[in-house]
Amino acid sequence: MLGRYLARVRETCPLVHNITNYVTVNDVANAILAVGASPIMSDEPADVEDITSICGGLNLNIGTLNQRSIEGMHVAGRKARELGHKVLLDPVGAGASRLRTSTAIDLMDEVHPDVIRGNVSEVKALVLGSTTTRGVDASAADAVSDQNLDQMVAFVKSFAADRGATVAITGAIDLVADADRCYVIRNGRPEMGSITGTGCQLSGVATAFAVANPDDVTSAVAAAVAAMGLAGEIGYSHLAPYEGNSTLRNRIIDALYNMDAQTLDGGEKVELR
Amino acid sequence: MLGRYLARVRETCPLVHNITNYVTVNDVANAILAVGASPIMSDEPADVEDITSICGGLNLNIGTLNQRSIEGMHVAGRKARELGHKVLLDPVGAGASRLRTSTAIDLMDEVHPDVIRGNVSEVKALVLGSTTTRGVDASAADAVSDQNLDQMVAFVKSFAADRGATVAITGAIDLVADADRCYVIRNGRPEMGSITGTGCQLSGVATAFAVANPDDVTSAVAAAVAAMGLAGEIGYSHLAPYEGNSTLRNRIIDALYNMDAQTLDGGEKVELR
Amino acid sequence: MLGRYLARVRETCPLVHNITNYVTVNDVANAILAVGASPIMSDEPADVEDITSICGGLNLNIGTLNQRSIEGMHVAGRKARELGHKVLLDPVGAGASRLRTSTAIDLMDEVHPDVIRGNVSEVKALVLGSTTTRGVDASAADAVSDQNLDQMVAFVKSFAADRGATVAITGAIDLVADADRCYVIRNGRPEMGSITGTGCQLSGVATAFAVANPDDVTSAVAAAVAAMGLAGEIGYSHLAPYEGNSTLRNRIIDALYNMDAQTLDGGEKVELR
Repeated sequence: MLGRYLARVRETCPLVHNITNYVTVNDVANAILAVGASPIMSDEPADVEDITSICGGLNLNIGTLNQRSIEGMHVAGRKARELGHKVLLDPVGAGASRLRTSTAIDLMDEVHPDVIRGNVSEVKALVLGSTTTRGVDASAADAVSDQNLDQMVAFVKSFAADRGATVAITGAIDLVADADRCYVIRNGRPEMGSITGTGCQLSGVATAFAVANPDDVTSAVAAAVAAMGLAGEIGYSHLAPYEGNSTLRNRIIDALYNMDAQTLDGGEKVELR
Repeated sequence: MLGRYLARVRETCPLVHNITNYVTVNDVANAILAVGASPIMSDEPADVEDITSICGGLNLNIGTLNQRSIEGMHVAGRKARELGHKVLLDPVGAGASRLRTSTAIDLMDEVHPDVIRGNVSEVKALVLGSTTTRGVDASAADAVSDQNLDQMVAFVKSFAADRGATVAITGAIDLVADADRCYVIRNGRPEMGSITGTGCQLSGVATAFAVANPDDVTSAVAAAVAAMGLAGEIGYSHLAPYEGNSTLRNRIIDALYNMDAQTLDGGEKVELR
Repeated sequence: MLGRYLARVRETCPLVHNITNYVTVNDVANAILAVGASPIMSDEPADVEDITSICGGLNLNIGTLNQRSIEGMHVAGRKARELGHKVLLDPVGAGASRLRTSTAIDLMDEVHPDVIRGNVSEVKALVLGSTTTRGVDASAADAVSDQNLDQMVAFVKSFAADRGATVAITGAIDLVADADRCYVIRNGRPEMGSITGTGCQLSGVATAFAVANPDDVTSAVAAAVAAMGLAGEIGYSHLAPYEGNSTLRNRIIDALYNMDAQTLDGGEKVELR
């Protein structure tokens, strides 16, 4: 069902502008290339308007943020908004420092991203730290589980409605929601938690999916989440006993590279609530 | 024929100062190590004079440029010039933003690099955007092909003459020229376009080749280009069906690591025009 | 004997704040994850106090330093010191530029790191460049060998005593010493010198070991050094003939990922002097 959103990425080859952290940036670029899109990176405020103008989407990731890159994110975000480009916000570390929480909230308030993708702690920090977010149940548990699934689905739908965005909370169980629908996705491997940057890669890839599928961004992001999780399963299946997290990192990107619509359709573990 | 230039790199182990983007910097470092040279990275203006002074060459790559690194490139470039070091300019994204185009042209005008390496779009942007470049046919096509090869060879020779530099335009067919000679190189694999940073790696490697072979920089850069393309072919030949762009990235550097002069002599696909 | 220090890392999962260079940062993060700890990266002065406060240790690496990151290191270092966190200093390139030497010495003087890890040239530069370092024999040779081992053991113990720190000098033979004891470690492979960042990875991993084993930081750092060297041996043993430095880089992190206490106990090549 979700394979068609991947097919659209391969057909349209969207160009994605990334302002992202220097820890995982190389893997983000290779993951975007693996799904058939193209990455370009630029964070200098004097450079980002021109760069984002030639792209179709913008991926804002606040890991290793600094004063220059924060300014670059605002400048690029305003320009992308003006041009009607898709914008994704990855609030890496929101809740871990005041600067990260406030930067993520400022970007939400000013740029109005089409997509927000983080782990449950980061998304909770956005909800709790945001004075403009009213009526959202911020008492959500720390991880999405079968026990709290109904509550978490309501939480993510509520936040998505409040922000007018598609919101993805990723973890052992992934949720991708807008105000009305929530995809519950159970692809992935626990070993992915031992690799730096699978979340950052997903944000880059999800931006490409959103650009290629503007008519249904929520389904497109769900497809990206399922594809990344399935790539983890496929990559893990090829590991030799002496291989570990570093090789798995490569195998996941390799699996994205080789994934087609049928593979995703056959491997997705998705329900809609 | 070109193997001896690789052999000279392995014999002399040149130290290369790189001011390069944070997307592909790790692969640049490992590629330089793979051919037997040594990399050092520094972009802080207060640090670069000392660092470049202990090196033999300087690789300036404007991907993810910022105000600090642009200043660092100028400071390092002037010092390297003063010391008679080899300097390579990689104008990543020239033509994609005004800042990148103007930075690349400023560096050409001030530092007078020995080598300029980019794709055809970037090199065309340098020609079109440069007021000091007269008499160069800037109507070159968007990609080098068998159909426009004579025209492109004339274009790259003309730009090389105008700048007093060795100019490398890389793509499906690679051209490496000075005013008088143009190497036409047909090594490589199309799958290399799905890996971020093969061009950046080549620029780092080519700087090492230029330092190790000061008597014939053009042939040295041609050797680097052929070696990188051949490494792509060798790396690709070892891929399992489930492997993709991320593993190919590693295999290319591995192939450079294992390449000796005879391998390059046997695998090069080069003609001189 | 040293396996128990690794076991403590896996049991306690320390969170390590890294201010480190952008060349090798991804491998540092994956190496820290491979031993069961967690990395977080932040260098912005306005961000580092909050980030380091939630961690157990701080890894300061001056490769690709800049004015902002230097300030970030001082701010983070003071806060970590105040909180009683373990701090490691990796003086990358000390001796290669005045800025690097002076930055490393300033950080030693102000932050008083628990651990200092570098190669012999870097550590010598710290000794020679430091006006507060008296009575240390700075005439140590350029590499630790069986011929100068007694002299080098005395040198590293003396520097450790002078700085009140655990000092690790890594190379073909590794030394890890405090004022009273020196571990002499002979794990590793010469091919590790053809990979960028094995030293940086070790510094990140050693910080995690120090945090997890506060009662005996010197033995903990020795365990990290032996583990990294043993991972090099194991990783090398799995290489195909066509594989090289890039795949070895992955295999080393993979070997850390799969290493348990018994493997380290069985593979360590350590003597205490």
